[in-house]
Amino acid sequence: MTQIVDCGFTRFGRREDDLVSMSVEPVKEIVEKNRDVIDFVVVSNGYSGEYNDVSGLNNLITTRLSLDEVPSFRLDNTSGSGGAALLASQSLIESGIANNVLVIGTEKMTSVVTKKSSRIIASLLNPEERKAGLSLPSLAAFFAKGYMEKYGAKRESLAEVSVKNHFNASMNPIAQFQKPVDLEAVMSSRVIADPLRIYEFCPISDGASAVLMASDGTAGSFSGKAVKVSATALASSSSSVSERATSLTIDCVKNSAKKALSKAELSPDQIDVAELHDMATILEIAESEDIGFFKKGEGWKAVLDSETSLQGSIPINPSGGLNSRGHALGATGIAQAAEIYNQLTGSCGPRQVKNAARGLSVNMAGFGYNASTTIYEVI
Amino acid sequence: MTQIVDCGFTRFGRREDDLVSMSVEPVKEIVEKNRDVIDFVVVSNGYSGEYNDVSGLNNLITTRLSLDEVPSFRLDNTSGSGGAALLASQSLIESGIANNVLVIGTEKMTSVVTKKSSRIIASLLNPEERKAGLSLPSLAAFFAKGYMEKYGAKRESLAEVSVKNHFNASMNPIAQFQKPVDLEAVMSSRVIADPLRIYEFCPISDGASAVLMASDGTAGSFSGKAVKVSATALASSSSSVSERATSLTIDCVKNSAKKALSKAELSPDQIDVAELHDMATILEIAESEDIGFFKKGEGWKAVLDSETSLQGSIPINPSGGLNSRGHALGATGIAQAAEIYNQLTGSCGPRQVKNAARGLSVNMAGFGYNASTTIYEVI
Repeated sequence: MTQIVDCGFTRFGRREDDLVSMSVEPVKEIVEKNRDVIDFVVVSNGYSGEYNDVSGLNNLITTRLSLDEVPSFRLDNTSGSGGAALLASQSLIESGIANNVLVIGTEKMTSVVTKKSSRIIASLLNPEERKAGLSLPSLAAFFAKGYMEKYGAKRESLAEVSVKNHFNASMNPIAQFQKPVDLEAVMSSRVIADPLRIYEFCPISDGASAVLMASDGTAGSFSGKAVKVSATALASSSSSVSERATSLTIDCVKNSAKKALSKAELSPDQIDVAELHDMATILEIAESEDIGFFKKGEGWKAVLDSETSLQGSIPINPSGGLNSRGHALGATGIAQAAEIYNQLTGSCGPRQVKNAARGLSVNMAGFGYNASTTIYEVI
Repeated sequence: MTQIVDCGFTRFGRREDDLVSMSVEPVKEIVEKNRDVIDFVVVSNGYSGEYNDVSGLNNLITTRLSLDEVPSFRLDNTSGSGGAALLASQSLIESGIANNVLVIGTEKMTSVVTKKSSRIIASLLNPEERKAGLSLPSLAAFFAKGYMEKYGAKRESLAEVSVKNHFNASMNPIAQFQKPVDLEAVMSSRVIADPLRIYEFCPISDGASAVLMASDGTAGSFSGKAVKVSATALASSSSSVSERATSLTIDCVKNSAKKALSKAELSPDQIDVAELHDMATILEIAESEDIGFFKKGEGWKAVLDSETSLQGSIPINPSGGLNSRGHALGATGIAQAAEIYNQLTGSCGPRQVKNAARGLSVNMAGFGYNASTTIYEVI
């Protein structure tokens, strides 16, 4: 079994430092404390070439950290890179190839103008759909319309996800957005893809985050608290969205959650805290259903009933989520893992979920192309 | 333990098909035969965004192959992506996360002009060294000069590597170059970085290659022959070349080979055939020494004595190597593994190394930034 024994973050948002400098910031202390035992570095990053004109990022990072002789690679799975990197790191440890893997998630997106950034992200679309002018925001809007129509969801329920996540982020010192917003502010913000508004989408972000993963055999030798990674599962769907456009279930989320929960021998109601992939507000609701926290079509009611708030039955995105912590693509899945680590070790201050002993994170690539679910437990 | 049970190739060279079409070509038959048992796809690719304006390549490939529900990720380690992908795939299998991993190496480089391609590759250099105008060819030339001076190597010995590799490639139907060249042709070809000439460098290539890796438990159920992967080891060095510029030893090659040979409990003289990372002719010679096939400073003599030819004591690059098979960055490490698989299963026709029972491949990233060594044995 694999454990997480430490974590680190940069502040998310628009940053002035370059990609390599930003990537090493969250791990400087971790490396100082554990220099002699880190035997692999996995870098989760989707677009260093496209955004930053940098390749071989893993090696540039190990050199900057004076970990020159530690083997490394870069793992990419677009916005789902982090979850896949957790899986790959776990497999390095459980196969005995490595003992202590430093996993760094990083992306610097503000180095290009917004239009170019949108074009870079659109490069993950199926070529036919890209030519037809589809975009991730338009797919989310289409999904939101279908969901509201089929399940009679109130428009406000979607916006309330943004209100909740902004509130949580206001207590997270590394979050991109630090101010709460009210329902009126969300509902009167600019329309990006009707009916969804700008406060309901994740921003463009720079940021890096890291976790140090260790084998059972070595985890005891670290000074900090440890959290068990009970299961990680990656599941895939078609990258041809039109083939599944009428579905309001995100199959890859459903399948990865089912697989991970089964591996961990847990049911959804045993999870105390979750970080989900809320690229748009509607996706947090759909995912909360597909994981099994709520019945299909009832996730929107749970938001209105505050079931997903910090004091609710299943607090979702205490970090602020992609929506408000920020979504630096390759960093996101690792930031989710680091937030759950902090929650399970009781280090979250005012946004701490009480008695959090079991956590779950979902990191998604593309618009439901693939997703990973990771499950964490206190030891 | 992990086995290779099948392999595939496209022809290398300038190709008209797009990246996704090219990437699936070598695996169509493998997928048809094994559709129900492939449970992970690892894509080895360094630069799909930079060269082809494509991201999320792993998911586009699984969709094109109608393997939509098979989880996947893209692994990048620049020109050493393939070797790292073999390691990651082995760890997925040996940790029990996957049973049968389809590993596809792919890169399409001719979609941009040569000048832009050089700029893309230079993005892997340490920023200070990149600003100073260093390039991979100039580093190889500097290395060649130092080597000839220190060890009294004859200039012709370097060129003979190109002659040998062109000859081998002339018998490899998937090789980029299909015609033998003689010493005079190499020595009179255009100077790229003095003293090295164009025939002594790998070309810019499009190409894809694949291996199907399986666990011991499942390997017996495949119809083809199987080859054991006895060991894979990745070792890293500084990406700051100037810090090690006077060294004529490639530490990461030396360390990864040492580690892999030790894991496989073999000595270099027990290896029957090797595929090395001959980005420039001098590197094949240096690597052949750093692995331990020859004493340091004597690899050049071994070339002149035909020790590394198909009939020699240790045939190197029977495929034609990067030099003549071609070097489609993300495809190279997988093409090396596929060539060794074919050699060890006796499928190489006129370029078959006699009685090949143990093989070794070295795949390098950057200019000695990191390297992986993989060792293969007949079962």
